[in-house]
Amino acid sequence: MSALRAAGAARPAVAQSLSAGVAQRPFGTAGAMRMAAVKSFHKDEPAAPILKTKFPGPKAVEALKELDDVFETRSVNMMADYTQSEGNYIADPDGNMLLDVYAQIASIPVGYNNPELRKVAQTPEMVDAIINRPALGNFPSHTWAGVLKSGILKVAPKGLNNVYTAMAGSDANEIAYKAAFMYRRQQERGGPDIDFTPQEIESVMNNQAPGSSQLSILSFKSSFHGRLFGCLSTTRSKPIHKLDIPAFDWPQATFPQLKYPLDQHAEENAEAEQASLDEVEHLIKTWHLPPAAVVVEPIQSEGGDNHASPSFFQKLRALTRKHNILLIADEVQTGVGATGKFWAHEHWNLQDPPDMVTFSKKAQTAGYYYCSKDLRPNKPYRQFNTWMGDPSKALLFRAIISEIERLDLVKHTAKVGDYLYGQLEGLAGKYPEHFKNLRGKGQGTFIAFDNPKRDEFLNKAKGFGINIGGSGASAVRLRPMLIFQEHHADILIEALEKVAKAL
Amino acid sequence: MSALRAAGAARPAVAQSLSAGVAQRPFGTAGAMRMAAVKSFHKDEPAAPILKTKFPGPKAVEALKELDDVFETRSVNMMADYTQSEGNYIADPDGNMLLDVYAQIASIPVGYNNPELRKVAQTPEMVDAIINRPALGNFPSHTWAGVLKSGILKVAPKGLNNVYTAMAGSDANEIAYKAAFMYRRQQERGGPDIDFTPQEIESVMNNQAPGSSQLSILSFKSSFHGRLFGCLSTTRSKPIHKLDIPAFDWPQATFPQLKYPLDQHAEENAEAEQASLDEVEHLIKTWHLPPAAVVVEPIQSEGGDNHASPSFFQKLRALTRKHNILLIADEVQTGVGATGKFWAHEHWNLQDPPDMVTFSKKAQTAGYYYCSKDLRPNKPYRQFNTWMGDPSKALLFRAIISEIERLDLVKHTAKVGDYLYGQLEGLAGKYPEHFKNLRGKGQGTFIAFDNPKRDEFLNKAKGFGINIGGSGASAVRLRPMLIFQEHHADILIEALEKVAKAL
Repeated sequence: MSALRAAGAARPAVAQSLSAGVAQRPFGTAGAMRMAAVKSFHKDEPAAPILKTKFPGPKAVEALKELDDVFETRSVNMMADYTQSEGNYIADPDGNMLLDVYAQIASIPVGYNNPELRKVAQTPEMVDAIINRPALGNFPSHTWAGVLKSGILKVAPKGLNNVYTAMAGSDANEIAYKAAFMYRRQQERGGPDIDFTPQEIESVMNNQAPGSSQLSILSFKSSFHGRLFGCLSTTRSKPIHKLDIPAFDWPQATFPQLKYPLDQHAEENAEAEQASLDEVEHLIKTWHLPPAAVVVEPIQSEGGDNHASPSFFQKLRALTRKHNILLIADEVQTGVGATGKFWAHEHWNLQDPPDMVTFSKKAQTAGYYYCSKDLRPNKPYRQFNTWMGDPSKALLFRAIISEIERLDLVKHTAKVGDYLYGQLEGLAGKYPEHFKNLRGKGQGTFIAFDNPKRDEFLNKAKGFGINIGGSGASAVRLRPMLIFQEHHADILIEALEKVAKAL
Repeated sequence: MSALRAAGAARPAVAQSLSAGVAQRPFGTAGAMRMAAVKSFHKDEPAAPILKTKFPGPKAVEALKELDDVFETRSVNMMADYTQSEGNYIADPDGNMLLDVYAQIASIPVGYNNPELRKVAQTPEMVDAIINRPALGNFPSHTWAGVLKSGILKVAPKGLNNVYTAMAGSDANEIAYKAAFMYRRQQERGGPDIDFTPQEIESVMNNQAPGSSQLSILSFKSSFHGRLFGCLSTTRSKPIHKLDIPAFDWPQATFPQLKYPLDQHAEENAEAEQASLDEVEHLIKTWHLPPAAVVVEPIQSEGGDNHASPSFFQKLRALTRKHNILLIADEVQTGVGATGKFWAHEHWNLQDPPDMVTFSKKAQTAGYYYCSKDLRPNKPYRQFNTWMGDPSKALLFRAIISEIERLDLVKHTAKVGDYLYGQLEGLAGKYPEHFKNLRGKGQGTFIAFDNPKRDEFLNKAKGFGINIGGSGASAVRLRPMLIFQEHHADILIEALEKVAKAL
């Protein structure tokens, strides 16, 4: 393994790297100098991508071969060297450094090797949390309430002030679904004080009704909510996620398929949204396993960056309220700032908040927020597991929140997102066939467009210094970190234009 | 929050604590001195429990009240102070220190505030892993193969040399089940090169056959395999785990209910085991959703510490092989040394290993081991999620393995388990009504007995300096750490006798 660099040690100046045997040189001198003149939030990152080899380089190939003996490698996009990655730039073992607008599938919030996170990772509190991991439901630390209040709950969505912690987005959604089922059955029974019947207690051990409820979660076509058995039954993005896995017979409604640019298709889009809402209501009324909750992403992320209007979500909230169905906002990918709001559902301007909001990814921990104590099951041990989350990750999220506040990164991302969107509009005007259905205006840097040769587009981008991801069938999705700045946007735009020309 | 103690700082001598206003003094001076003369693996732990208040003490009550505002507290057993916990002793905010033979539901392997783990938690490699968490399936570090080979795979069960990493026991089981379903359907199709049909690809998006398979996982009555929707469908320990949650209609076989002492019920027990195997075979042949795998715990842990003989497991292996069903050994609670073998299924002496072995808890990370590359799905992205485990936890497990090797803790646990079992036999002879069905002979410290007033037994134990847990309807289960020694066993036995007398 390569030697680890001490925190804060300076990287050799990029200009030197560039003049010392760079295999490819994607950015003109003028461009690089313009970039270098702008101050990055992350002072040790290079001023521009560094390309030393083709992809994958010889060291990456070797590391990949070694890994393939023992671990799944067919989904590997690139081998990374995290000790050398900095800020917005991901390094590989061959010395390449790419501007990373994919960011570990949208899960790196404040940059690689963030110095503030590094400090927190070295505190006695963090070390303690790592080596003494508690069973949080049974033996919480006396400091756990403080950790929650100063971190996870400090950024709780408006109206929601309780949290169940979890490990990742998938189990966060599953425990939210469990809460919905328990809540619904409790209502049907007549309240929290009504005990289970002997028939329920007996039948549930055979996985049969009435103990096992005959209820469902309603999700939307092309949604993604994770890959465990319950959440996978609500995931509808791609067959490859679901094939061969048993699934619950749960209902799905069509998500509005908006046409772009939005202002040119206002009427059609409004009709599509109303049709979707009508379908939701029809399914709620008629599905043979009644929905206990509707789960929805503010922006369908894995499914292809599909948006809907605030009006759609306001009506969805009203509809679920009308039918006494819970509304779960899955903010696993949209949460924590990237849309220019801390939570993407803030864009909806609801008076009546979602019943639960799930989170993970950029939070580096996971769980769901809720408000009503009715959503706390009527007895203990109904929502329980050994770890119930991880204090060390809660401490990390707290540090991420501090960094977001210190640098005002949510507002920043809203602003830089507007700039980036404007630049992309320029590109789309110039190369309409390569930047189709540009979307995400006013949604921070959570921007996407369609390209008919999408996979080739993504592959070629590395050669121009960019690590970028896709979603759905043909979308190129931008998921930069919250420390992505205008000068990064310039580098990105320059590279995207080169990719388009090279296709 | 109380000030954190630096690593290695000496705790005030226990004798001083004991003479300075201890509210209760559970151990005689002779006992304490005998204990103090024996060297603990963990040099900073007290020689005996320290009791300063009743349970819960005033500071614990206050912390609990604060936590209840924002987090589930009804399952709280005690509030802990991990900064003050040491080795086998868990501290609380009131200054009490209990000998912990529950160990965060069997998940602390080498002691609280283990100095070697503390060192590893402070290494640049760990800090890097914490602050740069990768999407392992897409962007693994070039060092990931090395981390796996020097840690998780170094202790791979015999015959299994591949691993899929996960977050906790529940998702480890679920991804093992997914692998079983994909494997079975691949066989039915005629091999990995046969592609999905258009009907499969279309139907799966509606959660219908043939794309969603009509298969099952066979588990045993009173088993526990986790609480997500798939694994909960195989969990059969308690109604409270399952009530109101939709479940798959999967089959369950009776787990042999052995009578104790084993040598006095050899014939009956053999019959019970054969009856169970016959039921398994019947279910495999007849269940309307054919099982793709059988999942079994080497010792049913949450379900009440239910054992079966090596012969039973050998025959179960043969039966599953005969019917081309995969065998999954769920070692989430039994794994990593506590039974006196690194993996409890080593006690079975199989020639033909289980197809998959799942792990978590004492490993502090999770996943499943497997051998056949056929269990690697035929295409990428079928077994995938953003994080796919956590390198920081893999590093922690590697450090735990080092510590186990350095102190030879598996052999040690086999030996101290024999000693502890002998002492418990003595107690059972003296108080037969309080130590019923003593079990776990030759299984390290993985020992249990039944008590008719079990919950009261557990509660009272704190007053005598012991933190101890239960399982099933009436079992007291011992789950000490691997650094539990004979002098701890003496303290435990003395306390258990006092509890029994006080009931």
